[in-house]
Amino acid sequence: MDNSGVNPANFIVPPVEGIAGGGTGYGWADVGTESSNLCKGVNVIDPTQIPSAELLHVWCMPSTANVGQQEMPRPFDHVSLLAARNERESVQIALRPKLSWASSGIAGTVQIQCTDLCSASGDRLVVGQSLTMRHVVPILGVPDALVPLDLPIAQINLLPGETTSIWVSVDIPAGQPPGHYEGQILITALKANAEMSAQVLSKAEKYNLYRELKSCLEKVEPVDGKPLDEVAERLKSATSSLKRLLLWPVFQESYGDNGSCDMMDEDAFTNISVNMKFSVTVWDFTLPLTPSLPAVFGISETVIEDRFALEHGSEGWYDALDRHFKWLLQYRISPYFCRWGDSMRILAYTCPWPAGHPRSEEYYSDPRLAAYAVPYAPILSCSNEARDSLRKDVEILKSKPHWRKAYFYLWDEPLNSDQYELIRSMSSDIRSYAPDARILTTYYCGPSDAHGSSTFEAFVKVPKCLRPHTQIFCTSEWVLGNREDLVNDITAELQPENGEEWWTYVCMGPSDPQPNWHLGMRGTQHRAVMWRVWKEGGTGFLYWGANCYEKSLVASAEIKFRRGLPPGDGVLFYPGEVFSPSHEPIASIRLERILSGMQDIEYLKLYSSRYGREEGLALLEKTVSPPLPLSTLKPKANAPFCVIPFHSHPLLLRHASSAFTRVLFSSSASSSHRGFPSFENQ
Amino acid sequence: MDNSGVNPANFIVPPVEGIAGGGTGYGWADVGTESSNLCKGVNVIDPTQIPSAELLHVWCMPSTANVGQQEMPRPFDHVSLLAARNERESVQIALRPKLSWASSGIAGTVQIQCTDLCSASGDRLVVGQSLTMRHVVPILGVPDALVPLDLPIAQINLLPGETTSIWVSVDIPAGQPPGHYEGQILITALKANAEMSAQVLSKAEKYNLYRELKSCLEKVEPVDGKPLDEVAERLKSATSSLKRLLLWPVFQESYGDNGSCDMMDEDAFTNISVNMKFSVTVWDFTLPLTPSLPAVFGISETVIEDRFALEHGSEGWYDALDRHFKWLLQYRISPYFCRWGDSMRILAYTCPWPAGHPRSEEYYSDPRLAAYAVPYAPILSCSNEARDSLRKDVEILKSKPHWRKAYFYLWDEPLNSDQYELIRSMSSDIRSYAPDARILTTYYCGPSDAHGSSTFEAFVKVPKCLRPHTQIFCTSEWVLGNREDLVNDITAELQPENGEEWWTYVCMGPSDPQPNWHLGMRGTQHRAVMWRVWKEGGTGFLYWGANCYEKSLVASAEIKFRRGLPPGDGVLFYPGEVFSPSHEPIASIRLERILSGMQDIEYLKLYSSRYGREEGLALLEKTVSPPLPLSTLKPKANAPFCVIPFHSHPLLLRHASSAFTRVLFSSSASSSHRGFPSFENQ
Repeated sequence: MDNSGVNPANFIVPPVEGIAGGGTGYGWADVGTESSNLCKGVNVIDPTQIPSAELLHVWCMPSTANVGQQEMPRPFDHVSLLAARNERESVQIALRPKLSWASSGIAGTVQIQCTDLCSASGDRLVVGQSLTMRHVVPILGVPDALVPLDLPIAQINLLPGETTSIWVSVDIPAGQPPGHYEGQILITALKANAEMSAQVLSKAEKYNLYRELKSCLEKVEPVDGKPLDEVAERLKSATSSLKRLLLWPVFQESYGDNGSCDMMDEDAFTNISVNMKFSVTVWDFTLPLTPSLPAVFGISETVIEDRFALEHGSEGWYDALDRHFKWLLQYRISPYFCRWGDSMRILAYTCPWPAGHPRSEEYYSDPRLAAYAVPYAPILSCSNEARDSLRKDVEILKSKPHWRKAYFYLWDEPLNSDQYELIRSMSSDIRSYAPDARILTTYYCGPSDAHGSSTFEAFVKVPKCLRPHTQIFCTSEWVLGNREDLVNDITAELQPENGEEWWTYVCMGPSDPQPNWHLGMRGTQHRAVMWRVWKEGGTGFLYWGANCYEKSLVASAEIKFRRGLPPGDGVLFYPGEVFSPSHEPIASIRLERILSGMQDIEYLKLYSSRYGREEGLALLEKTVSPPLPLSTLKPKANAPFCVIPFHSHPLLLRHASSAFTRVLFSSSASSSHRGFPSFENQ
Repeated sequence: MDNSGVNPANFIVPPVEGIAGGGTGYGWADVGTESSNLCKGVNVIDPTQIPSAELLHVWCMPSTANVGQQEMPRPFDHVSLLAARNERESVQIALRPKLSWASSGIAGTVQIQCTDLCSASGDRLVVGQSLTMRHVVPILGVPDALVPLDLPIAQINLLPGETTSIWVSVDIPAGQPPGHYEGQILITALKANAEMSAQVLSKAEKYNLYRELKSCLEKVEPVDGKPLDEVAERLKSATSSLKRLLLWPVFQESYGDNGSCDMMDEDAFTNISVNMKFSVTVWDFTLPLTPSLPAVFGISETVIEDRFALEHGSEGWYDALDRHFKWLLQYRISPYFCRWGDSMRILAYTCPWPAGHPRSEEYYSDPRLAAYAVPYAPILSCSNEARDSLRKDVEILKSKPHWRKAYFYLWDEPLNSDQYELIRSMSSDIRSYAPDARILTTYYCGPSDAHGSSTFEAFVKVPKCLRPHTQIFCTSEWVLGNREDLVNDITAELQPENGEEWWTYVCMGPSDPQPNWHLGMRGTQHRAVMWRVWKEGGTGFLYWGANCYEKSLVASAEIKFRRGLPPGDGVLFYPGEVFSPSHEPIASIRLERILSGMQDIEYLKLYSSRYGREEGLALLEKTVSPPLPLSTLKPKANAPFCVIPFHSHPLLLRHASSAFTRVLFSSSASSSHRGFPSFENQ
């Protein structure tokens, strides 16, 4: 008979449930949650009586890990970070309930409490300032939004069968004394909300309490001159009111203790907590305040205007732009605001005030700003007024020391000769009164109507078309595909001796597995965008948009990614209003990894300045497998992945070892512990 | 030059962000959350002032839909269900915030309020009894656990960017007068918890309030016989205490209104709610109380004993088994408890009490029970005592009318001739004093040591090996693969005239796309397990385990699926303790779909009794595409999927149309509205 399509019983894995005991056997591993402290069969679990470690898993994860809801627990470990001054270092603390001790669908509530980190000499990294905690919230199911938690004590709810992650960051102030700082994070399972509900006064109860108290007051207040018997009557009534009030359930706990307050005993509390030691070693060197590599990131003014209902040029509008500018500076990013015109004309400006305004000097001379866009006003209106205003601004700016940070971004990805001609025309105009102005042009191809050359050749020859009307040739990383060697073709066309620079950008492309900042990529892919820039030797980087979610006219409206773009593309932070009443933007995990990458560049630069660029490159080669191209990042196959607790720095592999160093730089793991590095500050 | 590996710019989709305006344009659809009621730019949204429909999406989904967190909103619609008496019909209400109106990471809290459903003649389907609501909670990220919500008013939290689903079920009592019942479900956005926190008294505040009140009491209480000036002094002090108390922030709202209580106005409340009409048409026929098809499902006594720390045979143990038995009966399931012995020997029993015990009659004669397992005690101990006890039980049972429901399940999936011989021996023993006993044997292959036949042939010929020692030949659906025609090979070997029956089972196999109950399969796959049974003509069904999660000794411990099994296999409900302090099991969505399938069988049977089995089969063929085999279910390509609001019954396509009918039976959609069916009760 024809048995095709029939499952050949006896030949492939049979549908037997479990082994060694059949269907109701417990399968391979006969293990479960067993604990001498948990009363077996008791259904109401009192978390104040049980070590929290028996109620939940607590473990560390590196900042490069995407800790999803199904992340499986790992062994508990303490945290020990290594950081320079003026550096932010982050680590994740993952939590997952072992069982449920609360009701109403949640597994339980957990309190997270941080202390300051102190050194032996009494110096401090202060919680809430240097030490911050944020709750990792999924966006489209991927852990991404970092919603601030209260400090020093925060509470979060854990759900049955779900892992939750807390993002802990340490910001080392530039003036922090180097040394070893120690503190602790206490994680404590709290009593169920339901049991706390006795402490909640309902609206009606509150009103009743208020009415009772008021009536007592009326009884006792106007007794002067009243007959004594009336006073006695009123007092009797007030007495009985007060007695009745004291019997309210909301006070039950209080009078149960003969009036002695049963505030939680601090010692009893910490005795049951999971006590995670948190230490930071601060190196005796400082990351430069001004990023060595200018990374200019767009902020859509249109999105801000729509979402926060701000009229262009109003006081609130200036406030909003100012907040965005300052907030992004902490990420070693040089922001520019932008608005698009026809055919990818772009108005890009770093400071919303004209060059003559007192605020503009504050913006342009900020040492954290590595580059700034000068608004080319005529892009919106070609009036003489706009031209005059631009010229006036440039005249002011070109006399300042910060003029070397200035650039003009006039057109996004010109596609044909007409657009090239317009760039040339605008550039000529600017350069007529500012010959050393830097014009930035982004592109991923040559002019579509260029004849007689291949598409890649047309792309490579763009400098020929735009010289001297562009100084910053900013190309898409996407063009390179997996041919990193083509970098040479690009740079061979440039004349750095004449001030020409090569910058790069990422946007929709490149896509997985190359480095980019799309949601759902691995943490190392996010972080490695900047590694790639350093390796390729570009001198700057551009990103098109940090807040370019879908249009909405309500600040707290759901964030939607724009259709047609990969999720996360153009969105590196979220409006705070979506997650809280706060105006403070909510960073994405990806933005934190951009910061890590920017910091890595400083390490790579310092390292190369001591050991040479080839050694720096060799360092990067060791981080990934296969070593070339860097653009395809995979951890080495022999890396001890199960032991990664958190990230360390490329520099440290010559000086110290850590588990993550072993992973990232496995061949160098054996060298270790020659003491702290002693790089001079820049 | 060699361009291999280079992205051919200009030839494939370029990395251009958006269109018509570039990167900061809003892309294709220039739409957002716009509303005249929402004050633009106002960051604190007061949900008591805004129609809830502007704050959240509300829409309906059929019970066969897996509504995940990323499910996209559909248009709002009212619910209109159709059900027989003694039937449960379910529908899902999906909710997704349009924006955030709360703080602390949630988008907002929503209140869901149900009314009774009333008919014009005053009959009722009572909320909390006939109408229930459960929160759909993801398990391993897949919507599965149905956690009961309070009724008539429940509250749930919505998260930003996440869809949440409420499972609404209507249970029509057998005695319910037929007719049209109407009610409503009000969905209302509530004020943020943060704003309510002013109403929460902290422990310290509570203690202070208590102390203040007590001190007031002490001042006013013992005034009798005190000098008047002392009384006056005390009163003055009490007065100032009370005044101070009334100024507490917790009372702010109350005195802001001159003492008039601002309890929420009921009308104002319902004015802003999303008001979903919820109607049920109860047909004038009743699903039989006793399922036409016996579906026997295993419950592991081992799991119950471990998880709830119950000693075998203790009072708590009997209670737990009793609760499980009764709870599962509502799903048209005939439970059996089980414990595995060596080599897949199994002790299976429906009633934990011996046949002579008063409780056993209650169990065996329950009309909802379609079949029961008689415990073959010697499986655990081959003592004479065990043999005598079995014989005594059988002597009692075989005299009862319910004896026709009895079966013996002795061995799970025998694999070789030795095991076959043991089955024959046990069967002979039983049949020596109960010649009409029914022995059930599960198998997916023939004896492994049978010579001279193909594996499929050995499987098909099992009845030859086990006759007359098995009456119920229970085969795995997995064996059929995608060759539904092989059903004939199986049934051809059986002698129904001699009382032989063909039952089937599913477990690890078959897998996707065939019908089974694994987590992550489509709702129609879950439901269609029973359609398949009916189509194939089996007269019963067995499932190995409904509570076979991983071992744990704590009732509220995280539920883990057993390693080596597909997620959800062997787990159809969860311990209530994981989600709440309740002992009540938490049904999975899959269990609800099993019930739907069991009810569908009654419809198919009724339909076929009127129009013939061929017509019934034709009905099923129309539900799926391709029509054969049924085991590979896909909706018809031309089905108007976007309009599915909820499920209706196969029977109804001759009598009424509904959107779901159009989908499930698209070719019959035009026939409609001939009035209610008038099938007699069985």
